[in-house]
Amino acid sequence: MKVLLVFAHPERHSLNGALRDVAVAELEARGHEVRVSDLYAEGWKASVDRADFPEMAEDERLRVAGASGRAFTAGALTEDVKAEQEKLLWADTLILQFPLWWYSMPAILKGWVDRVYAFGFAYGVGERSDTHWGDRFGEGTLAGKRAMLIVTVGGWATHYAPRGVNGPIEDILFPINHGVLYYPGYTVLPPFVAYRVDRMDEGGFRQVADQLRERMRSIETTEPIPYRMQNGGDYQVPSLELRPELGDPGASGFALHVDRMRVGLIQL
Amino acid sequence: MKVLLVFAHPERHSLNGALRDVAVAELEARGHEVRVSDLYAEGWKASVDRADFPEMAEDERLRVAGASGRAFTAGALTEDVKAEQEKLLWADTLILQFPLWWYSMPAILKGWVDRVYAFGFAYGVGERSDTHWGDRFGEGTLAGKRAMLIVTVGGWATHYAPRGVNGPIEDILFPINHGVLYYPGYTVLPPFVAYRVDRMDEGGFRQVADQLRERMRSIETTEPIPYRMQNGGDYQVPSLELRPELGDPGASGFALHVDRMRVGLIQL
Repeated sequence: MKVLLVFAHPERHSLNGALRDVAVAELEARGHEVRVSDLYAEGWKASVDRADFPEMAEDERLRVAGASGRAFTAGALTEDVKAEQEKLLWADTLILQFPLWWYSMPAILKGWVDRVYAFGFAYGVGERSDTHWGDRFGEGTLAGKRAMLIVTVGGWATHYAPRGVNGPIEDILFPINHGVLYYPGYTVLPPFVAYRVDRMDEGGFRQVADQLRERMRSIETTEPIPYRMQNGGDYQVPSLELRPELGDPGASGFALHVDRMRVGLIQL
Repeated sequence: MKVLLVFAHPERHSLNGALRDVAVAELEARGHEVRVSDLYAEGWKASVDRADFPEMAEDERLRVAGASGRAFTAGALTEDVKAEQEKLLWADTLILQFPLWWYSMPAILKGWVDRVYAFGFAYGVGERSDTHWGDRFGEGTLAGKRAMLIVTVGGWATHYAPRGVNGPIEDILFPINHGVLYYPGYTVLPPFVAYRVDRMDEGGFRQVADQLRERMRSIETTEPIPYRMQNGGDYQVPSLELRPELGDPGASGFALHVDRMRVGLIQL
């Protein structure tokens, strides 16, 4: 297996750095090939701007999707972005590792998504018809590959429980799991989340490291989150609303887009 | 009223730029004082790193929360961050304006949050006791001030409807409205969201501009989203889980943290 781990923590000598070493070591011990994109170490440019599209005329108005699509087609994106796209095509498994800051990714990783996910590469792919609204949410450039998150959190697990004040961790990570990973085609595995990382002692670390090793050992066989395919018949086109007869009655929000029937079947 | 508008779009001659002008003009016409933080124009640094804490020893391990708290207390944060904190304290109303990229803020705005929201300023505020878990979610440095989002979206409104494939816009914006605005104390107004902005013609723009003007006219009186206060008795301490008797039976996810009883009362 070929694994790309995108690492977004500013301190190599951190819990995140130690967990990265654990993950990479375990994957390599199982014979997998691992590459790491260490965004801070590489000085990754976070903000999309005109400099991302070197062939744009100076007085041209920047429309990001259009400029991105033209540059992608022409092979004229910047070298840092092209290198990341090549790694994504090379890998059959993607891991994004980051500390949860303000209920989302650190800016540097958001900027990796904003810049690497070019139009024509990660979105704007596929045709639109009466039954098909582009290749996305289960289809797309990265279909057939697996992806998962490794996330560290300062707060307590109960604060992110189904009734916890922050909202459930599944919902907090939905815009990433569903919106960033599933969108361009990845099969998305349940995230690995470590809580209360600011107060972790040696024993706590050993436990978390063991759990992470187990996740790395089973990365090829772990059951994915059963998100519904956009073009698989569950959604009306072009409104892209879930058909009225689907989903638990009264269910709402992100949970509707997980096919609980499939979860049930898997559990049998 | 004193309004700070934080603007996060790379192109001044854009729909976002035009909507910003509409909002600022309407607010100023009503006698409000408006300041704008144009993150791209100011070359805002997006990524938190060691350079944010100039007084750190070179060989010291970077722990972001700790370094942030020490620098905040010592008045030793960087000048760009201090200037933004001063603007937040000056303003009684905050507007964050941005295009929705990958179901969240552009990296440059996430980096504004990551850097400006220092420990001791936006988090790590207040005491912990048996009934009180710090000043946050309804209390904190920015309590008593109002905040709202102005968001532009490429997709269709139905794609972000309660059963739309992206998930409901309220839930997509929850980590920002609840996690970034409500957390340090802001009273959060419903967001202003414009859809299908890539295909908008003159008539469409006039309509959206009119709706935005109306929102700016009523910004002092608009009913906020009735999020539940963390320390108001609805949550158990320290688990911070919503008390079992609260929330619609069977409800789950982010919606639990909106007090529908209060919505009902407001509507009467």
